[in-house]
Amino acid sequence: MTQPVVITDVALRDGLQIQPRTVPTDTKLELYDRLRAAGVRSVEVGSFVHPRLVPQMADADELFRRLPPTDGEAIALVPNMRGAERAIGAGVRHARLLISCSEGHSKANTNRSVDEGLAVLAAVRERLLGEGVHVTGAIATVFVCPFDGVPPLRQVDHVVGALARMGLTEISLSDTLGKADPAHVERVVAAMRSAYPDVVFGLHLHNTYGMGLANVAAGLGQGIRQFDAALGGIGGCPFAPGAAGNIATEDVVFMLDSMGVPTGIDLDGLGAAAGFLRTALDGPLESAVSRALGWAA
Amino acid sequence: MTQPVVITDVALRDGLQIQPRTVPTDTKLELYDRLRAAGVRSVEVGSFVHPRLVPQMADADELFRRLPPTDGEAIALVPNMRGAERAIGAGVRHARLLISCSEGHSKANTNRSVDEGLAVLAAVRERLLGEGVHVTGAIATVFVCPFDGVPPLRQVDHVVGALARMGLTEISLSDTLGKADPAHVERVVAAMRSAYPDVVFGLHLHNTYGMGLANVAAGLGQGIRQFDAALGGIGGCPFAPGAAGNIATEDVVFMLDSMGVPTGIDLDGLGAAAGFLRTALDGPLESAVSRALGWAA
Repeated sequence: MTQPVVITDVALRDGLQIQPRTVPTDTKLELYDRLRAAGVRSVEVGSFVHPRLVPQMADADELFRRLPPTDGEAIALVPNMRGAERAIGAGVRHARLLISCSEGHSKANTNRSVDEGLAVLAAVRERLLGEGVHVTGAIATVFVCPFDGVPPLRQVDHVVGALARMGLTEISLSDTLGKADPAHVERVVAAMRSAYPDVVFGLHLHNTYGMGLANVAAGLGQGIRQFDAALGGIGGCPFAPGAAGNIATEDVVFMLDSMGVPTGIDLDGLGAAAGFLRTALDGPLESAVSRALGWAA
Repeated sequence: MTQPVVITDVALRDGLQIQPRTVPTDTKLELYDRLRAAGVRSVEVGSFVHPRLVPQMADADELFRRLPPTDGEAIALVPNMRGAERAIGAGVRHARLLISCSEGHSKANTNRSVDEGLAVLAAVRERLLGEGVHVTGAIATVFVCPFDGVPPLRQVDHVVGALARMGLTEISLSDTLGKADPAHVERVVAAMRSAYPDVVFGLHLHNTYGMGLANVAAGLGQGIRQFDAALGGIGGCPFAPGAAGNIATEDVVFMLDSMGVPTGIDLDGLGAAAGFLRTALDGPLESAVSRALGWAA
């Protein structure tokens, strides 16, 4: 239990992509700096999705070009080959490739079937690897799809297996809707870790129904040591009706601090970053810790 | 895991005691009816605390007199002998006796030491038993005290042991501040269940730092089958600085439904009750489910 946990802050990507206002690039860069100053080593900075689909991410190229040099801790979400070319041009060193676990979400998100998406992803991975980019995988709607319901375990296995055979050794399992319960998380994580012992799994969780930290605890119990979370608990998926905020980085850090699990992240530093974020969004934060500690006021 | 769980709704007591406005008795009675209609069998209806200390509970006598007859599902919190006499006069059939686990909270809450409180509680129990009232116990600040920090396990054992030797066989362990983490809950519950196998333990949890449902899941895993929760996630302790809302009944029911754990409670019925509560308080609800399902809007 006391093995360190890596928290990947996704506020700049999953958090901002659903905001009504587009945050300026300078503000994003300052938020990145503040997250790093708080000890957040892993940050998902943006997505190379088509700017017409998600205008809040249109500055991904400029953003990555202007980032201070890091050792691959700045992650770009790359949905397709065009995004990969943009990412390479912007100097991205760590690309996360995204695929849906369910046909309904895959169609709504990319207008491709899951298997068509897997074929695209294989080609994108080749291209990025050729440029020396570190490539990891993320699977959406692993637990519940807004269109198809709960994907059968064999469908999760189909997608995870395809990524593993491609050579991806880090795969994030996403509860896009926040509808997974801790028993469900335990079942899926245990099955996947057992079937793919060479893959390091992470969890991407939302707190829509309040089960976010329960699912973190369930994942921890099954050996998960990487979690996505967003400062302030902001976020949601524009292509998944009913999705709400990510689990909040500060809520996860507070719980792990209390449990004695090292994260390398300083809660006071997160408070400073959260205050900056609240001003940038001109709106309240969603996390329990920000309310309890008066950050959201 | 599929053994049924009893949820005791404490919105009428822990939920209302900290509200700025005092809710009329008629409104409380209607909320009680709506909770029962949603399938909530166990309801903490009020507290026989001194009306000067908690004016929101001043109508406890009238409230219990006007309740429809039940089989002990309407619970009164009884802090002392004066409260016991009032409870007997009001026809209370189920009294919960309250004691603090920590000296600091005991002093702030009752101006007595823990051992003085235990002596009072023993006398109160005798008096109530003589009238045929069902008596159970509740221990505050079992996990973290706002004044003394984390009570050592031997202090928890001291208080639980005293209640058990008095003959109490149902004891609720309270995380008054919402600062317990799931590992902490597991440790304390496992130790107490092992030391007192004849006692049926419950958990009273708050969601101040977002860990509420994680602690429910941890308790479930350790065999807990009774949880306090408040409709709408309202609540807090007026004598514990930093305390915030109870875990929300609807959030617990949503998670247990998802896990296949029977509660006998209907989520739609809770939605109707929550809408009524929101109007009565003229303020937003705190639960994740009420926001996700649009009850709070």
